[in-house]
Amino acid sequence: MEGVDHLAHERNKSEFDVDAMKIVWAGSPHAFDVSDRISKLVASDPGFRKDNRSTLSRKELFKNTLRKAAYAWKTIVDLRLSEEEAAKLRFYVDEPAFTDLHWGMFIPAIKGQGTEEQQQKWLPLAYKMQIIGCYAQTELGHGSNVQGLETTATFDPQTDEFIIHSPTLTSSKWWPGGLGKVATHAIAYARLIVGGREHGVNGFIVQLRSLEDHSPLLGITVGDIGMKFGNGAYNTMDNGVLRFDHVRIPRNQMLMRVSQVTCEGKYKQSDVPRQLVYGTMVYVRQTIVADASCALSRAVCIATRYSAVRRQFGSQNGGPETQVIDYKTQQSRLFPLLASAYAFRFIGEWLKWLYADVTQRLQANDFSTLPEAHACTAGLKSLTTTATADGIEECRKLCGGHGYLCSSGLPELFAVYVPACTYEGDNTVLLLQVARFLMKTVSQLGSSKKPVGTIAYMTRVEHLMQCRCGVQRGFAELSVDLVEAAVAHCQLIVVSKFIEKLQQEIPGKGVKQQLEVLCNIYALFLLHKHQGDFLSTGCITPKHAALANDELRSLYSQVRPNAIALVDAFNYTDHYLGSILGCYDGNVYPKLYEAAWKDPLNESVVPDGYHQYIRPLLKQEIRTARL
Amino acid sequence: MEGVDHLAHERNKSEFDVDAMKIVWAGSPHAFDVSDRISKLVASDPGFRKDNRSTLSRKELFKNTLRKAAYAWKTIVDLRLSEEEAAKLRFYVDEPAFTDLHWGMFIPAIKGQGTEEQQQKWLPLAYKMQIIGCYAQTELGHGSNVQGLETTATFDPQTDEFIIHSPTLTSSKWWPGGLGKVATHAIAYARLIVGGREHGVNGFIVQLRSLEDHSPLLGITVGDIGMKFGNGAYNTMDNGVLRFDHVRIPRNQMLMRVSQVTCEGKYKQSDVPRQLVYGTMVYVRQTIVADASCALSRAVCIATRYSAVRRQFGSQNGGPETQVIDYKTQQSRLFPLLASAYAFRFIGEWLKWLYADVTQRLQANDFSTLPEAHACTAGLKSLTTTATADGIEECRKLCGGHGYLCSSGLPELFAVYVPACTYEGDNTVLLLQVARFLMKTVSQLGSSKKPVGTIAYMTRVEHLMQCRCGVQRGFAELSVDLVEAAVAHCQLIVVSKFIEKLQQEIPGKGVKQQLEVLCNIYALFLLHKHQGDFLSTGCITPKHAALANDELRSLYSQVRPNAIALVDAFNYTDHYLGSILGCYDGNVYPKLYEAAWKDPLNESVVPDGYHQYIRPLLKQEIRTARL
Repeated sequence: MEGVDHLAHERNKSEFDVDAMKIVWAGSPHAFDVSDRISKLVASDPGFRKDNRSTLSRKELFKNTLRKAAYAWKTIVDLRLSEEEAAKLRFYVDEPAFTDLHWGMFIPAIKGQGTEEQQQKWLPLAYKMQIIGCYAQTELGHGSNVQGLETTATFDPQTDEFIIHSPTLTSSKWWPGGLGKVATHAIAYARLIVGGREHGVNGFIVQLRSLEDHSPLLGITVGDIGMKFGNGAYNTMDNGVLRFDHVRIPRNQMLMRVSQVTCEGKYKQSDVPRQLVYGTMVYVRQTIVADASCALSRAVCIATRYSAVRRQFGSQNGGPETQVIDYKTQQSRLFPLLASAYAFRFIGEWLKWLYADVTQRLQANDFSTLPEAHACTAGLKSLTTTATADGIEECRKLCGGHGYLCSSGLPELFAVYVPACTYEGDNTVLLLQVARFLMKTVSQLGSSKKPVGTIAYMTRVEHLMQCRCGVQRGFAELSVDLVEAAVAHCQLIVVSKFIEKLQQEIPGKGVKQQLEVLCNIYALFLLHKHQGDFLSTGCITPKHAALANDELRSLYSQVRPNAIALVDAFNYTDHYLGSILGCYDGNVYPKLYEAAWKDPLNESVVPDGYHQYIRPLLKQEIRTARL
Repeated sequence: MEGVDHLAHERNKSEFDVDAMKIVWAGSPHAFDVSDRISKLVASDPGFRKDNRSTLSRKELFKNTLRKAAYAWKTIVDLRLSEEEAAKLRFYVDEPAFTDLHWGMFIPAIKGQGTEEQQQKWLPLAYKMQIIGCYAQTELGHGSNVQGLETTATFDPQTDEFIIHSPTLTSSKWWPGGLGKVATHAIAYARLIVGGREHGVNGFIVQLRSLEDHSPLLGITVGDIGMKFGNGAYNTMDNGVLRFDHVRIPRNQMLMRVSQVTCEGKYKQSDVPRQLVYGTMVYVRQTIVADASCALSRAVCIATRYSAVRRQFGSQNGGPETQVIDYKTQQSRLFPLLASAYAFRFIGEWLKWLYADVTQRLQANDFSTLPEAHACTAGLKSLTTTATADGIEECRKLCGGHGYLCSSGLPELFAVYVPACTYEGDNTVLLLQVARFLMKTVSQLGSSKKPVGTIAYMTRVEHLMQCRCGVQRGFAELSVDLVEAAVAHCQLIVVSKFIEKLQQEIPGKGVKQQLEVLCNIYALFLLHKHQGDFLSTGCITPKHAALANDELRSLYSQVRPNAIALVDAFNYTDHYLGSILGCYDGNVYPKLYEAAWKDPLNESVVPDGYHQYIRPLLKQEIRTARL
């Protein structure tokens, strides 16, 4: 942040206490302090440099990620970082790596599905990284439908072992991160077969590679599945393919918290409730919602700052052109995304609370709120990731041509983010789950089961139950409409929780006022976007719709002077943003110009290939050229 | 297409003559023949292989593109291809290259803006590729607003030369394709200054590099601007940066068809109408609309075929799962895009006619239809490219996780396509131009000037003029609403022209019926998407909206059995599609599995970096490791 601040005039315009807003964004003074400290630590350490990612070949890129992962671990160990600080460090390193799966899936799976004994054996090894784990669930032919997995785990009572096998090509494990080249162990999911009988899909700890020389063990075929979308992005990750050829593992490597197989070959369920699995899902999806606000706010920060730097048209008497952020067309696309970033931040916070609440209840054997919590997180995961993926791309377009350069940071941010729409539940499949939950709730409206929590509003439509139902078709036939209803339900949750947030005390000059403006933008923008639904159901009149539109326009004008400060409040370092267009000081053009010369093509003035392929054209010698 | 056709059962279901539809799609039997012949020629020549593009480093990728461009030219020369065939060959080679700009911008600019004499001098050199040209308009600080360009061309009467100069950093030419590493010449746009007076922006032919050793000429600083979005994609192109330091060129290298500078330093306008420039714009944008239908249909073809291959959920008694194309949620996202691909094809055809019509009129000094044609192409360029970019990404998501793999072809298709939303007029800026044209038309409704062509429908709203206008705000304030109006206007054109197409005779069993279904889907899908506008203006009632929705559902069922045949009608080779998920025979899984092993990471079983960065973790030696 040395030199002139080209956005100082924008920062001076702001009407609220930015430092106070930073605390609101971070969630607490403590959370702000940890984020601020660790993000600066990462930003200032050249070992975590990432600006060259887009030009590296796959092998160079991957090797560099291995180095960074090791370096991050060394930093964590050397500085004796806490678990919270270590997680933040991995976050700010901002590069998908095998460690994400090790810490984020392998360890939690053992914790959630392993017995006490299994946890005692495996967790210390994993915590010290003496083994590196991945999570091998999806297969080449099977994604969302876990019950359709084909890999088998057949119990052999003779040797007290399971035989893990891939019976078909489509049963090859496919996609697991960290599997391709790194993981020494996997939690592999397979159909459990005991005494010729199937008992559904279960998880098994399978060693994949030698701990001495890293070569795959007997019966294991493993590799990387190849290049994925984007420059850098998820190509730093070794998403893998894995085939088992009758691989034997000891019986005690089946994760046995929920169901067991005895050495006599008896299958039994434990008294641990199966619903625990849903508790884990709630956890994982809750983190995805939190990540959505990070990714979207990052894109919005870049687009907002650059929109204040960039000028186009509107020059008066040879004066400077108009800042593009002053155009209503720019504001109407950018400011709803800014509002969404804040909305998603708060809904993520609320989901964190919801998860804590559900966990507490589960421990007390209270499963009553689990279906609602499950529907809620499934729906919000779908809603926020779809909106974020679209929002990042919209931010890229809002940066005009320069947004297409890798140095804008937006292409990689998009490419690295979009899988969130598919992993941990395809977004459409999730909405159908929400729809099913809503239909069930509606069907129980007359009964003694009162809807609570996020579906409490349905009590108000109880009179519906007195009306004759005109529905003539089944769920599948109406699934498109049901998905739309599920989206509306989730939007309602986001808006309600944003409003609830504003009912709390929020310190800092002007902070609450700014959030109120953003909340109104978020709500009215949705109303405008979906005005067809509101109009066709008679919830609003065309006059209301027009008034909402007028109000939206006025709200955009209120945000305008605070826009830069509102993205400053995210407190992102230039390193984390990874964008020349979004750099804090707004000194965009000299930085773009300098960065260009670092492209490998500029290593020589005359390009490699000139003599073979350009000169023969110019010299009319193409017919005899060797091509 | 060897081996088993896994989609044969789908093809057998179709209810229309696919070969006849292929002719309709191509435009004519002749067009079909050329496309079919050239696409197969390219597909069968290993010199045009493209499946390794995503793993190449920037330098390897670029060098390979140079080779292909030379090889394509050699093929054109060797086979004595016609101009039409040569253009098709470049199209099916399917790799952005400097030749696109040479043939598509440099030569047309000389034709359009050069005098007879200039054309006679430069065109023969360009046609034989003795020189290679690019089109240097945009600057680091200036895109859409051409009048804001900063580069200067100052006439020096002493030497009868222009001095081309970049006075600021932001005046650096930035983005021109082919400029970075290849072009020997540029059409450079600069503010013309004669005798101290400015005369607006003009084009100049400037030599950039030596024709002997390719080194930049004195005063020229030139290079590549760096990596852009995506794997392969536009990174095959050397988009460039260019600075002029008082570069001198002879006076006769100013393009002088429209305005001239004499050797005495007198500036004059010729009697050639300036409107010709708009004629060229109409041409370029018309080709962009045609390209939109190609790109969208390609993505739709991939997603449709894969949706028929992929199965998920719904297995009955252990039988196969349901094809995802049978889910209504899939159909409701996919089939409107299929309909859009056809709609854009026909609007592209119509625009081609419109351009021919305008050209004819211009030659007869009739400028009356130019404003409408200009608004029309501007709006349709914006509409079709936005819908296509979004549609490609939607198709990628419709392919689930595997759509994220480069081998699906969709990531690169998206990344290579999206710049179309920005180049040749930013899509929002273009819609504002359409809005301005619409406002002008409305303002003239009472006058003797009757709206014709695509705005003829406005005569029906003439009574509006008798009403009191309640508008209280200016154009800029209402620009967001005006943009929405412009979109609606353009949608109306697309729907009308689709309907007009269906009023023609269309041979082939069932062909017209299929097109009618698609046309209805396209129109009703738009009605559903924008039902808020229709409802709030009272054009339809909620009951109509519900009926439209019912009808849409029924239309999807009618398309379903014909879906594969409707994408077969595009007649794309597997080479052109460049997608394992979209391959003709539907044999997806073995091909995905095989392709994975070709990734460079799989060259060794144990990855490069294991000893330095993985083993120290596993062996607990990280604190002493060199990282």
